[in-house]
Amino acid sequence: MIRFNNDYNHGAHPAILEALASTNNDSYSGYGLDPWCEKAAAEIKKYLNCENAAIHFLVGGTQTNFTVITAALRPYQSVISADSGHIHVHETGAVENCGHKIQTLPAVNGKISAAQIAAIAKRYADSGIQEHITQPKMVYLSFPTEYGTVYSKKELEDIHTVCKKYGLYLFIDGARLGYGLGASDVTLADLARLADVFYCGGTKCGAMFGEAVVITNPALKVDFRSYMKQNGAMLAKGWLLGLQFYTLFNGGLYFDITKKAVAYAMKIKEAFAQKGIPAYIESPTNQQFVVVTEKQMNQLAQKYIFEYEEKIDADHHCIRFCTSWSTKPEEIDALIDDIAKL
Amino acid sequence: MIRFNNDYNHGAHPAILEALASTNNDSYSGYGLDPWCEKAAAEIKKYLNCENAAIHFLVGGTQTNFTVITAALRPYQSVISADSGHIHVHETGAVENCGHKIQTLPAVNGKISAAQIAAIAKRYADSGIQEHITQPKMVYLSFPTEYGTVYSKKELEDIHTVCKKYGLYLFIDGARLGYGLGASDVTLADLARLADVFYCGGTKCGAMFGEAVVITNPALKVDFRSYMKQNGAMLAKGWLLGLQFYTLFNGGLYFDITKKAVAYAMKIKEAFAQKGIPAYIESPTNQQFVVVTEKQMNQLAQKYIFEYEEKIDADHHCIRFCTSWSTKPEEIDALIDDIAKL
Amino acid sequence: MIRFNNDYNHGAHPAILEALASTNNDSYSGYGLDPWCEKAAAEIKKYLNCENAAIHFLVGGTQTNFTVITAALRPYQSVISADSGHIHVHETGAVENCGHKIQTLPAVNGKISAAQIAAIAKRYADSGIQEHITQPKMVYLSFPTEYGTVYSKKELEDIHTVCKKYGLYLFIDGARLGYGLGASDVTLADLARLADVFYCGGTKCGAMFGEAVVITNPALKVDFRSYMKQNGAMLAKGWLLGLQFYTLFNGGLYFDITKKAVAYAMKIKEAFAQKGIPAYIESPTNQQFVVVTEKQMNQLAQKYIFEYEEKIDADHHCIRFCTSWSTKPEEIDALIDDIAKL
Amino acid sequence: MIRFNNDYNHGAHPAILEALASTNNDSYSGYGLDPWCEKAAAEIKKYLNCENAAIHFLVGGTQTNFTVITAALRPYQSVISADSGHIHVHETGAVENCGHKIQTLPAVNGKISAAQIAAIAKRYADSGIQEHITQPKMVYLSFPTEYGTVYSKKELEDIHTVCKKYGLYLFIDGARLGYGLGASDVTLADLARLADVFYCGGTKCGAMFGEAVVITNPALKVDFRSYMKQNGAMLAKGWLLGLQFYTLFNGGLYFDITKKAVAYAMKIKEAFAQKGIPAYIESPTNQQFVVVTEKQMNQLAQKYIFEYEEKIDADHHCIRFCTSWSTKPEEIDALIDDIAKL
Repeated sequence: MIRFNNDYNHGAHPAILEALASTNNDSYSGYGLDPWCEKAAAEIKKYLNCENAAIHFLVGGTQTNFTVITAALRPYQSVISADSGHIHVHETGAVENCGHKIQTLPAVNGKISAAQIAAIAKRYADSGIQEHITQPKMVYLSFPTEYGTVYSKKELEDIHTVCKKYGLYLFIDGARLGYGLGASDVTLADLARLADVFYCGGTKCGAMFGEAVVITNPALKVDFRSYMKQNGAMLAKGWLLGLQFYTLFNGGLYFDITKKAVAYAMKIKEAFAQKGIPAYIESPTNQQFVVVTEKQMNQLAQKYIFEYEEKIDADHHCIRFCTSWSTKPEEIDALIDDIAKL
Repeated sequence: MIRFNNDYNHGAHPAILEALASTNNDSYSGYGLDPWCEKAAAEIKKYLNCENAAIHFLVGGTQTNFTVITAALRPYQSVISADSGHIHVHETGAVENCGHKIQTLPAVNGKISAAQIAAIAKRYADSGIQEHITQPKMVYLSFPTEYGTVYSKKELEDIHTVCKKYGLYLFIDGARLGYGLGASDVTLADLARLADVFYCGGTKCGAMFGEAVVITNPALKVDFRSYMKQNGAMLAKGWLLGLQFYTLFNGGLYFDITKKAVAYAMKIKEAFAQKGIPAYIESPTNQQFVVVTEKQMNQLAQKYIFEYEEKIDADHHCIRFCTSWSTKPEEIDALIDDIAKL
Repeated sequence: MIRFNNDYNHGAHPAILEALASTNNDSYSGYGLDPWCEKAAAEIKKYLNCENAAIHFLVGGTQTNFTVITAALRPYQSVISADSGHIHVHETGAVENCGHKIQTLPAVNGKISAAQIAAIAKRYADSGIQEHITQPKMVYLSFPTEYGTVYSKKELEDIHTVCKKYGLYLFIDGARLGYGLGASDVTLADLARLADVFYCGGTKCGAMFGEAVVITNPALKVDFRSYMKQNGAMLAKGWLLGLQFYTLFNGGLYFDITKKAVAYAMKIKEAFAQKGIPAYIESPTNQQFVVVTEKQMNQLAQKYIFEYEEKIDADHHCIRFCTSWSTKPEEIDALIDDIAKL
Repeated sequence: MIRFNNDYNHGAHPAILEALASTNNDSYSGYGLDPWCEKAAAEIKKYLNCENAAIHFLVGGTQTNFTVITAALRPYQSVISADSGHIHVHETGAVENCGHKIQTLPAVNGKISAAQIAAIAKRYADSGIQEHITQPKMVYLSFPTEYGTVYSKKELEDIHTVCKKYGLYLFIDGARLGYGLGASDVTLADLARLADVFYCGGTKCGAMFGEAVVITNPALKVDFRSYMKQNGAMLAKGWLLGLQFYTLFNGGLYFDITKKAVAYAMKIKEAFAQKGIPAYIESPTNQQFVVVTEKQMNQLAQKYIFEYEEKIDADHHCIRFCTSWSTKPEEIDALIDDIAKL
């Protein structure tokens, strides 16, 4: 069976394994206070155009999301998210477990707009009963989104403007950041300029595990390491994270391997299109959602593992094919062949 | 100005004040361990047909809601509510502050249905990824609802059946319970039979303050007093609550005064209808929502205080008139006159 | 039986009941936005010498304690308290339920010292592993303490100085404040000058219920009403609280009735002393702790209700006699007689 | 510089790196639902004599501690710990952040006794004011303790008996479990028999990262994966944990490498003893605490990194030397030589 079910079904890029092996006889200080974390932060900063950014390395995505959110919000403050946002639908209420309401907005193509955010912020500001409702204080976006779509620079700038106007923090979940950067006109420097905090995902983009949080807003930097430790997000052997991110960012490996995965995804997209199988949503990144018949689905399932999304109608289903840094060209060739034969 | 803005704008029914005065020279044990709480519980039980119910007296509605919910749920469990439910829209995220997600269902006339609840419970049961999503474990209903509507006995029985099927607790917020009992075929004994926990509101129904929580499900009785104390919901002078509820339930005062308030509301309803002013929602209880023109609204505002709800269109607004145990007949007469003159 | 078990075993001072009765036909805005709350705040401010203080009225002590603490602290911050502090020993973990560690200091006579506080703050500052331990950020004192003792102005000034030095908030729990003011050289204006937040207890000092929180530190004023609502501490009929505190502070009733109670307590103290029955702790306020023999205890228990504290040795027990605004002179006379007869 | 500062200053045992490399081309299901986790659990179970144990793999120690504790306790319940317990002193209030009080007992040699636990449990049971205090519901022990000491089988059995008597869960933190097993008469099967939940530490015992939680009490197994996910403790690439624990337990590597580290520690202990440098505490495991003069400390610091503990008196300091699976014989030889030369 060939796995297109997600982008975290393989260990790590070989360069990561090599780096781990070549440093395994060395000893380091714990908890992220080591030379590799410093060097990794320096590499990432080369792309940020923001010398004062604070960079921290955490282990996983859910953990990163709730640690950032709980560090930013007071108990009566809420976070605005698309109703398809990962924090709302797939993190077992982790944000609420930290005490915060998620105020959802109906997503269009997995995205929310500056206008929607402005409306909810204005409603609070104008309500006259502020003490009876939660105060929206942060906007959570995924880039790319859970549906593989991306925000344009213009869209992010508009959202940034609304956030500034209403005193909202902008937090961008970049669990799949690598796959989105090439598919949009947004750069890491744009994210550093427009977001108060965001992260470069490692787990899904070539690392064995790890997420690199970039904090640009000084208010969010205060004692962030205390939040990490309290939430179990401070790896004892922190240099393992620094080493991985140094390996990914030094020389641009992070961008190369995710770019290739997106190119593969475009081939899959085209193959489905040529076959007349419609996309569920137009995605320019490594996740491709298509609407297939039950028969087509079963046929593909004989050889491929993909993610089942939902039933569309009596005979149609939405399924997801996901490429990654670990996808091999022969796997793509096989899939394209088999799509053509459907 | 005459207040129709809500049902908690006067101190207490005179009988309550009298009871407080006549016991003011007596001394009591604290924290609800006193004869008045016992006697009040006994009076309430006369209506329940449920000898083993545990009855506790808390101070206010928001407090009661989050104390009951936090006592019932484990951290990864969520509560299902109408999207118009009080816990979702007007309690400053108190439930989330206790760590729990509220899963909202679109309300129709302020109500949710057994079918909607079954769908959300089934989705969890069938998801295959239970550990990634919150587990719905409780259903929260308001009776009457935030829009003055009530559930029929049949509707509650259907909801009860779904709850039993999926292992959900049924929790009924009765902050305005008195006003709903006469307007539906539901009795206190039905609530005790169908809900796992509910409360008889005092604050809005004649008491100075206080809510009487009735717990019928043994699992929810365990150490409930510890939850009360921890959440600041155990009044030091607990007998003040018992005394008030004894006064309200002994002899049926609770039912009489709320019934009268509903009769007054029906007069208001009729007056608006005769004038051709449409109801925003058909309410058989003490809250009446109508859609008036800007001019009508301003005219009424010269003499009456009512609650502004929302703008309907360029010239129309939804406003609420609320009667209560303290509404006087001359206030109703005046309002009816003035509606006729609009 | 005559109750000396605590200072909350009677309803309310007659002036309070009168005030409630005389306003019962009036209607008010809810949630503390009413003229009585304004007037009560103005009366209290007359004693504060702090025009910008924010004053809020909450219902009970535990509720007030955790609402203030959760409003002040971030998740990784802790509150310093005497190990005999009410928040540590008698509030069912309410502070921890809000997410905060209580760092205890061994109390001497129910009190902690500036030196102890400085030591714990310095230990954090010097630790070098700040992210692994909680940050002490608030000091909690009771005035009077749980053992009836009081801090002198000098002691509070020293504590204030340490708090400023280390960036700690000073929070003074005044559940029994009235009983302490006359027994120390500390005034309300001193508290307003030295504490960042404190409260004037109503429940134990003549009110039916209620605590008046005084916030002088601007950082702690921000959105405090949101914290109140979220924590169930915003009474719907808020004017009931304002009215009570207005009644207590207008004309100084609060001070008169607590002063009288302390005078009664001094008589009890003297009676025990004359009998050679030792005080467990030297208390200048309304709580008197004495060490009696089992026989003496049983004899007193035939006519009086007092609080049992702890077993001292095979034949000795510590018990507490507590006077209050509701104590009657004939009750004191009877007790003194009976002590003499032991 | 040679590091004896802790047991997590190297990457991983070479066998772990090999295992990671040899499976790096394979793809797996995520979130711990993979063959390696199954195989690892099976290997661990061989030592447990408890077929029904549930075994879960988490990433780090603090995370494991608070996830287990929050899964076990209701909001008003507390956990009993030595005052030197890791959850109390070095986890940034993570347990309190989950809402629970830690009730501390004064440790003797890092340990607490069955009698101490019984006393605190009995005090709650006898208090008569249960709703005003937290309910002790879990006992937390470290094995070995933070001071390197171990409990004997008899001590654990006595604690187990007290826990059963008072309805307390017994939770054993085995972050350094490997180093303790050989130094006590306690086996893994004993832990499975006596504890309700414990864990085998990986991070400090040869793994790159990871802790294997063993749950024997059925009540604690319920939906444990939901707690893991909610608390960020469910690694996306879960097989990386399973693979590591399989490698450590298959063939007994876990026991061999930690046994060797303890043997090294005994050499250090002897070297200090021969030099007349006193132990701060008698430790039979890989952590050795000694009391040195300032001069001795500075001399050792020229070549070795160790952990500074505390100042003992004007000229004496307590420092810790820690061996681990990664300690090399030549490092031990060098240290012993240098101790002799002090």
